[in-house]
Amino acid sequence: MNIGIVGFGYWGTNIVRNFANLPGCTLKIVVDSRKERGEYLNNLCPTARFFIDSDEIIHNPEIDAVVIATPVFTHYELALKALTNDKHVLVEKPMATDSRQAQILIDLAEKKQKTLMVDHTYLYTSAVQRMKTLIINGDIGNIKYFDSTRINLGLFQPDINVLWDLAPHDISILNYLVPEKPYSVQATGISHTRNGIENIAYLTINYNSNLIAHINCSWSSPVKIRMMLVGGDKKMIVFNDLEPTEKIRVYDTWYDHKTDEDRKKILVDYRTGDIFIPKVENREALSVMAADFVSSVTNGSRPLSDYKVGLDVLKILEASQLSIKNKGKEVLIK
Amino acid sequence: MNIGIVGFGYWGTNIVRNFANLPGCTLKIVVDSRKERGEYLNNLCPTARFFIDSDEIIHNPEIDAVVIATPVFTHYELALKALTNDKHVLVEKPMATDSRQAQILIDLAEKKQKTLMVDHTYLYTSAVQRMKTLIINGDIGNIKYFDSTRINLGLFQPDINVLWDLAPHDISILNYLVPEKPYSVQATGISHTRNGIENIAYLTINYNSNLIAHINCSWSSPVKIRMMLVGGDKKMIVFNDLEPTEKIRVYDTWYDHKTDEDRKKILVDYRTGDIFIPKVENREALSVMAADFVSSVTNGSRPLSDYKVGLDVLKILEASQLSIKNKGKEVLIK
Amino acid sequence: MNIGIVGFGYWGTNIVRNFANLPGCTLKIVVDSRKERGEYLNNLCPTARFFIDSDEIIHNPEIDAVVIATPVFTHYELALKALTNDKHVLVEKPMATDSRQAQILIDLAEKKQKTLMVDHTYLYTSAVQRMKTLIINGDIGNIKYFDSTRINLGLFQPDINVLWDLAPHDISILNYLVPEKPYSVQATGISHTRNGIENIAYLTINYNSNLIAHINCSWSSPVKIRMMLVGGDKKMIVFNDLEPTEKIRVYDTWYDHKTDEDRKKILVDYRTGDIFIPKVENREALSVMAADFVSSVTNGSRPLSDYKVGLDVLKILEASQLSIKNKGKEVLIK
Amino acid sequence: MNIGIVGFGYWGTNIVRNFANLPGCTLKIVVDSRKERGEYLNNLCPTARFFIDSDEIIHNPEIDAVVIATPVFTHYELALKALTNDKHVLVEKPMATDSRQAQILIDLAEKKQKTLMVDHTYLYTSAVQRMKTLIINGDIGNIKYFDSTRINLGLFQPDINVLWDLAPHDISILNYLVPEKPYSVQATGISHTRNGIENIAYLTINYNSNLIAHINCSWSSPVKIRMMLVGGDKKMIVFNDLEPTEKIRVYDTWYDHKTDEDRKKILVDYRTGDIFIPKVENREALSVMAADFVSSVTNGSRPLSDYKVGLDVLKILEASQLSIKNKGKEVLIK
Repeated sequence: MNIGIVGFGYWGTNIVRNFANLPGCTLKIVVDSRKERGEYLNNLCPTARFFIDSDEIIHNPEIDAVVIATPVFTHYELALKALTNDKHVLVEKPMATDSRQAQILIDLAEKKQKTLMVDHTYLYTSAVQRMKTLIINGDIGNIKYFDSTRINLGLFQPDINVLWDLAPHDISILNYLVPEKPYSVQATGISHTRNGIENIAYLTINYNSNLIAHINCSWSSPVKIRMMLVGGDKKMIVFNDLEPTEKIRVYDTWYDHKTDEDRKKILVDYRTGDIFIPKVENREALSVMAADFVSSVTNGSRPLSDYKVGLDVLKILEASQLSIKNKGKEVLIK
Repeated sequence: MNIGIVGFGYWGTNIVRNFANLPGCTLKIVVDSRKERGEYLNNLCPTARFFIDSDEIIHNPEIDAVVIATPVFTHYELALKALTNDKHVLVEKPMATDSRQAQILIDLAEKKQKTLMVDHTYLYTSAVQRMKTLIINGDIGNIKYFDSTRINLGLFQPDINVLWDLAPHDISILNYLVPEKPYSVQATGISHTRNGIENIAYLTINYNSNLIAHINCSWSSPVKIRMMLVGGDKKMIVFNDLEPTEKIRVYDTWYDHKTDEDRKKILVDYRTGDIFIPKVENREALSVMAADFVSSVTNGSRPLSDYKVGLDVLKILEASQLSIKNKGKEVLIK
Repeated sequence: MNIGIVGFGYWGTNIVRNFANLPGCTLKIVVDSRKERGEYLNNLCPTARFFIDSDEIIHNPEIDAVVIATPVFTHYELALKALTNDKHVLVEKPMATDSRQAQILIDLAEKKQKTLMVDHTYLYTSAVQRMKTLIINGDIGNIKYFDSTRINLGLFQPDINVLWDLAPHDISILNYLVPEKPYSVQATGISHTRNGIENIAYLTINYNSNLIAHINCSWSSPVKIRMMLVGGDKKMIVFNDLEPTEKIRVYDTWYDHKTDEDRKKILVDYRTGDIFIPKVENREALSVMAADFVSSVTNGSRPLSDYKVGLDVLKILEASQLSIKNKGKEVLIK
Repeated sequence: MNIGIVGFGYWGTNIVRNFANLPGCTLKIVVDSRKERGEYLNNLCPTARFFIDSDEIIHNPEIDAVVIATPVFTHYELALKALTNDKHVLVEKPMATDSRQAQILIDLAEKKQKTLMVDHTYLYTSAVQRMKTLIINGDIGNIKYFDSTRINLGLFQPDINVLWDLAPHDISILNYLVPEKPYSVQATGISHTRNGIENIAYLTINYNSNLIAHINCSWSSPVKIRMMLVGGDKKMIVFNDLEPTEKIRVYDTWYDHKTDEDRKKILVDYRTGDIFIPKVENREALSVMAADFVSSVTNGSRPLSDYKVGLDVLKILEASQLSIKNKGKEVLIK
């Protein structure tokens, strides 16, 4: 299986490094419009060739699969061309700029019987896998809330707002952990630049049950926070992605306190049970994701982060954008 | 100046302790409907008398000022009676259950020329005072966002939701630090109990300028967080109230990054300047608040946390309640 | 049972507060040489009388037991007088300025059949009790090392060095957790004042087995650290006393790594197992200690923190002092 | 300038990566006794050749300089051969197994007029450079203590104890920051394996002035700590190397508290001044060290981490080893 990669920027470099070292596939070509990246590729993966035109990949019959790691607004066109030319496709998140485009890609992939996968890398982290296992095993109970803070001093993207940039991580994890489908969103935000693109935004996601999800994204925080609370009616999880070795904490805590005695204890103490910090393997999620793509192409297996995951994320992003424009009005998810 | 206190529960105990030790006033009477609190009062302040009926304070001509530390739904009636009987009044936050009631109290206080003060204790903390000084001195620049997280495993109040319970702290600080008046809110939330009272809620506050404020409140978090980000266009402040000695951090950071070089640095580093942690005095804010009340009654000075502060907080709470009921719809602040 | 307390300073205030509220005993008299403390006592415990002469307690036939919370150099004389006058005695740590004095007190207490107890409060904390339980249950295995850091910006005591001031906490916990008796010490330290009293000191304690204990004490650190590592050959405990709710962490970790595979994992990861943070009750250890004293006097039970504990601590302190004077030379514990 | 590297293990890999990308030199040959490392080198630096015999470097006239990244016990012999064959030498720390060997190397290097440099990488970190600047500028005042904790769950080295493995970092930083020469050490430690090699050790370093240094090293801690306190008589520094962006904290704190008022404040507060966290560049120290070596070879400049640094570290390690064997007895540094 021969692979071509379009886009060799910050994230693309990680993509290249992982596919270059992955068994079961050969990285043949890397494309980037910036000529000077060719030399850097030569250091990183001397066996791959470098071009500045993506057609060198898409029209190359030797290439089986294309990885698209370019700016968001180019995803749709590149993926469409690649699928049209009978390539399997792995595209960076978010998979397109709207769900209509995504649906066209999906339909084409199904028609062509090609893998169409979206790189929601987080799903492949040991931490998210561990949370999923805890939830499936019933340790957490029914999930009652999901609250994520993803803020730091980040690059102001010129084409997408902070939700489109950061929230795909949270939304893909949320959808993965929670079986229930959300039905609506409310979102608010602010732009501190003249282009009107929000650099701070808040998103609430609603469900038919009394589950609530909330995501706080910012490019403008002096401190970096990557913290996710997942509250079940048995236990609660705190996922702090900045902790090097203690990413997941399981709190033997729930707030169904009926007696006055319980109420009193909480006033004094603020914690009602033990905490468990499971050992989580320290592996690079990107390599697992890459292997899942190769396996899907080779064996026809359904990847964990398939186009359905990508589409569902997109629908929530679209709804949130509409809500921000309508001053926080509730918007139904398509 | 003789003082009577109505309400001798968790917070009332702190109130009693502070007024008992305060120069310039004498704590004469404490009232609580639970008879057994009388003995405890005897330990804490043996010179004060104990009753179970608030009329013992309100109709006692010896009493100059009444402190009301009872459940929220009783504030209005008690304050009204106290003012009617020519007492100065200090009432716990929030000052009433709606702004109409608050306005009646204010009008009466002005007519009677009595102090009417609301206990927004946080305004008297060294940390908030320090933030105010930094802002007034121009160190922070124009404030661009305010983001507060106030979550923990807390008592589910039976009569007020989590915003009414916790957000008065954030709103009073926000209003104190930011001179601009907010014009609208959006709020979302969820109740995990049958009484429909929200135990998790999110509030966005909007301004005519491109300033945004957001408050995240929860009684259902396994971890306790008290963190406030105040971002100016010169510097940013992080106020972590759980830090014993490092509550305020000033980041020499702003995100007006024009050059590609700057962009690159941020990708690598996530922080662009020095951090300064000013020494903040470790005093009990409640005693400063109590002294401000005594000074207002004695000298006629305007207290920092006056009825205007209380009313403004109430208006935002009211608007947020309406927004939650209307599924996050924008609601103008009266 | 009637109690008199000699010494009403910083710690004495806590002692008074606890005995004043303790069932089964009556606090009758408090003595402090500073007259002005009388008024403060009147606030704190109006039913107790105040004197400036300790004889008012020691020669008062109504008094059954004396608590001595004065500077260390006065402990011996006061305790001796109290025991001579048939009082039970609770003395602050360290119990005397040398072990010879301590032995005289012990002999007298045994002859008089009176309780002689030393206030090693830490033994009564929930955290230490929990560590003891873990060790007794065999969860930790054989203890292989004990490493404690107890540093902060503290008062330079005029009469005792930093080891005598701070290390009694660590030594009493060490002796409590580890059944094996230590046989020697080495200690080093430095004085930054003209009086030659060490404000920084390091103590190694040796055992016949290959267990080692080390204690790092300082009054001169800008950061406060209270961290104790207890390494067993099954698991390891980290006790961080500054954590409000997570004082005890149990690491499922040991370093008996035989295979190359294990070695590799450690290089990558630095942690080999799960972490467990047991819920530890948040109670005031001092009140449990006080109750243990009352119980001992009343029922003749042996207190947890008995004179044996006090004497053993003293012997290690004496040996460490001798070692510091002899430039770190190994000194046998008597 | 052509470079050969002997030793391509964990640290050797970092060395190779840095020299491969360094301007002003060419990495020609890498040697490692494990044949299979050849393939890995081909990935990392395809232009360098691989051999299993160090003579391929040492007897190669094309090679100007040799980097030795092999186990400690081989350093002397390899460096001797390299210098004898007129190569410049950069050797990993510690530079030899005793100071006599180091002196022979130094004498030979001087005679041959070749660079002999020891890789004390830490001296090249931005954090250490910043501390040095603060000290030189007089901000910290006279240094009064240095206290370093360097513990984690680490590989048990088969040939050197934990002090020889970890303390070179601390000693080289200490010697760099403190101009005064130490005159003696005391050290204690324990071995938990049958080979008698200490896996936990404590080292005190003494000076003629009342400065004290202490280093706590362990391969057996479940938590990783890299914390250094540097106390001056004006300010104090805390260097926490595990902090990603806040490695250096400067405390406006000293403990010369003369008045009772000061004493009181400290009891309440534990911190007496502001804290300043300077922005420290996030660069790879190893590349700066490598450039310093290249510059020394090319221009004859004296490297920061020269043989004098290496020799002084060795002398303290030797003295500490002797002290451990003599049960903590004070040992003079040669």
